Amino acid sequence: MKLAAQLEKLGTETAFAVSAAAAAWGAKGNKIYPFHLGDINIPTPENIVEATRKAIADGYTGYCPGAGIPELRAAIASDVGTKRQLDYNAEDVSIQPGGKPVIGKFLVAVMNPGDEVLYPNPGYPIYESQIEYQGGISVPYGYIETESGFDLDLNGIKNAISAKTRVLIYNNFQNPNGAQSSRAEMEQLAELAIENDLWVLSDEAYFEIQYSGQAESIVSLPGMRERSVILYTCSKRFAMTGWRLGAAIGPQSVIQVFNKLNTNIESCTTHFIQRAMVEAIEGDTSGPDAIIDELRRRRDAAVAALNSIAGISIAPPDSTFYLFPNVTRIMKDKGFTDVNQLMDEALTATNVSFCTRKHFGRAMEAEKEHYVRFAYSGIGVEDICEGMGKLKSYFEEGTLA
Amino acid sequence: MKLAAQLEKLGTETAFAVSAAAAAWGAKGNKIYPFHLGDINIPTPENIVEATRKAIADGYTGYCPGAGIPELRAAIASDVGTKRQLDYNAEDVSIQPGGKPVIGKFLVAVMNPGDEVLYPNPGYPIYESQIEYQGGISVPYGYIETESGFDLDLNGIKNAISAKTRVLIYNNFQNPNGAQSSRAEMEQLAELAIENDLWVLSDEAYFEIQYSGQAESIVSLPGMRERSVILYTCSKRFAMTGWRLGAAIGPQSVIQVFNKLNTNIESCTTHFIQRAMVEAIEGDTSGPDAIIDELRRRRDAAVAALNSIAGISIAPPDSTFYLFPNVTRIMKDKGFTDVNQLMDEALTATNVSFCTRKHFGRAMEAEKEHYVRFAYSGIGVEDICEGMGKLKSYFEEGTLA
Repeated sequence: MKLAAQLEKLGTETAFAVSAAAAAWGAKGNKIYPFHLGDINIPTPENIVEATRKAIADGYTGYCPGAGIPELRAAIASDVGTKRQLDYNAEDVSIQPGGKPVIGKFLVAVMNPGDEVLYPNPGYPIYESQIEYQGGISVPYGYIETESGFDLDLNGIKNAISAKTRVLIYNNFQNPNGAQSSRAEMEQLAELAIENDLWVLSDEAYFEIQYSGQAESIVSLPGMRERSVILYTCSKRFAMTGWRLGAAIGPQSVIQVFNKLNTNIESCTTHFIQRAMVEAIEGDTSGPDAIIDELRRRRDAAVAALNSIAGISIAPPDSTFYLFPNVTRIMKDKGFTDVNQLMDEALTATNVSFCTRKHFGRAMEAEKEHYVRFAYSGIGVEDICEGMGKLKSYFEEGTLA
Repeated sequence: MKLAAQLEKLGTETAFAVSAAAAAWGAKGNKIYPFHLGDINIPTPENIVEATRKAIADGYTGYCPGAGIPELRAAIASDVGTKRQLDYNAEDVSIQPGGKPVIGKFLVAVMNPGDEVLYPNPGYPIYESQIEYQGGISVPYGYIETESGFDLDLNGIKNAISAKTRVLIYNNFQNPNGAQSSRAEMEQLAELAIENDLWVLSDEAYFEIQYSGQAESIVSLPGMRERSVILYTCSKRFAMTGWRLGAAIGPQSVIQVFNKLNTNIESCTTHFIQRAMVEAIEGDTSGPDAIIDELRRRRDAAVAALNSIAGISIAPPDSTFYLFPNVTRIMKDKGFTDVNQLMDEALTATNVSFCTRKHFGRAMEAEKEHYVRFAYSGIGVEDICEGMGKLKSYFEEGTLA
């Protein structure tokens, strides 16, 4: 029996192979240091768990509206709007089973086959997969490494825009490189989006994972609200990755498409979890505050440990739970040309598991440097120090030889 | 900002308008008799609720595999296989956030644009919407009313098959008409599928809502397993509509596509609910048994009440929680030509809310008779009797006039 031809264009997340390799190595009796996971090994705050128990007991176990329950739509509209100085209301919010569904549904809503879509690369691999699967032309843009982290390659973006460009995907608080735009950078990007009349998906999955100051959104800039959909998720902020709850927030014309797609695809998102989320968003914030504090301790430990390794220099990102060090010198010293070789050898030599640049979209021609990604959301401070110590010995072997 | 052109082809469930009208009429202080709902007003069995609490407490709050947790895939494979005398294993199962996602993903997996897809009409309206949205040609087939219920229009199906026909959607235990195929009918349908080398979506959402005997699946017939995907849901059997858990079961080639789509669309289905479902499927069955007993009492009450109305005659379906009486004579007596007029007037005259044939796909040219759909899953026996009593008076008004 033949399958559909278009499936050839459907990509995936190759990082799952890293999890599988780590699990297989762990199954041989090795203690794995899991820096490859974008998951969080911190319990969901107790007030959310308690609100869930209550919602089930109160009988919120039947269908709810496809767009989401009005109370949660209103709570998210208020919370997201307040933090961005934007006036959103419940009708601007479509509840989703996670943040990820927003990517595909957004493209369904605004992209026609043959449209060009700008997307970050390295970046979340589902952008590339969904653009291409749905018949769009994927046009990657990159980042420029600086002393303080990564800047958007704004000239690259400008040069990549053509008459066919219709959509820009922007992931401030970036996975995998932790980049966070300055106000000036954001303004320049917004100018390009407005000048070229682009729809914008602002993937703000890590907006709340902010270690100092208040995060800002490109959607707050003049002329942006009407062309932008915000990808919102409860996964990171509330340590709820496995609960599957998120939302799309944007102009009602496009949010109504999301709602209609919900009716076509999954009916609704789990009812009692939506009830519990109203408590999570409007209630006690000590749970999410403690999550940020723990992640900050891990970040500081991981950054310090990485910077103690000869050949690695990294600035502490103010957001996300990812570190994306340049390992070009280590690769050279070891005589490697494929960064996945470094990953494979590091796993067996040190039990430290991590992803590489290759797991975040197809590498672009101009790229000369090599990067790996460490996530510190799934590993505690003690194991961070222990694992990084082993990695230091292994990484410096070549250097010292 | 323009939206995507293809959205013109995206349909929806118009039955939501019936819910909205009933809610608006109820808000005016009227006691609604809700026969329009496909939802269930019976609590989810306590052992499932308890297993959910435990799964959250045990920390199953992070991501799980996109295909679903191995234990649940194995439990469903065993349960579904045993009841159908088929040998399924965990790799043949892809966990989904409900039964509905199986429809769209199945079409993504096997249909090319321009392929013709046979689907039941009247039937679940998302078939028509998804086929057309995804660029297929929707080819409806109907049912023939008999003394004992509804038969498939097998000649109609035979005549509708062309060289372009590639997919058959079959909903035994049918929504909205409660039809259940005889073994002979199923064999004839299977023969057509095999002769014409069709992929088959066997929507078995109501397979477990069976009031006597053991339900049978077309997939059990020789030559069918390799061309069929079963739509499975926990929604009806366990009164878990709002929990959003289901599965696709079929050949590994197509199940692997489902898994890849999961990675692209929603990452995974809620982790702790999957843990709880292992308990639901393998544990104590007194909960689902009690649900069937309650639904049987409601069916018997609703069928008896309907048959007491002059002009209505209906056989008790052995499956589903829907009744689909022919109201052609009542329409004629009242001088109505649009069955939704009857629905609208009944709501305000009697507070009884129900759907009509029009909510289940575009009516076909040959149709001369009028039907309405009563669901008894969301209304208890006492209110069934009370509401049907009012409806009898109103329906018979015209007859007696």
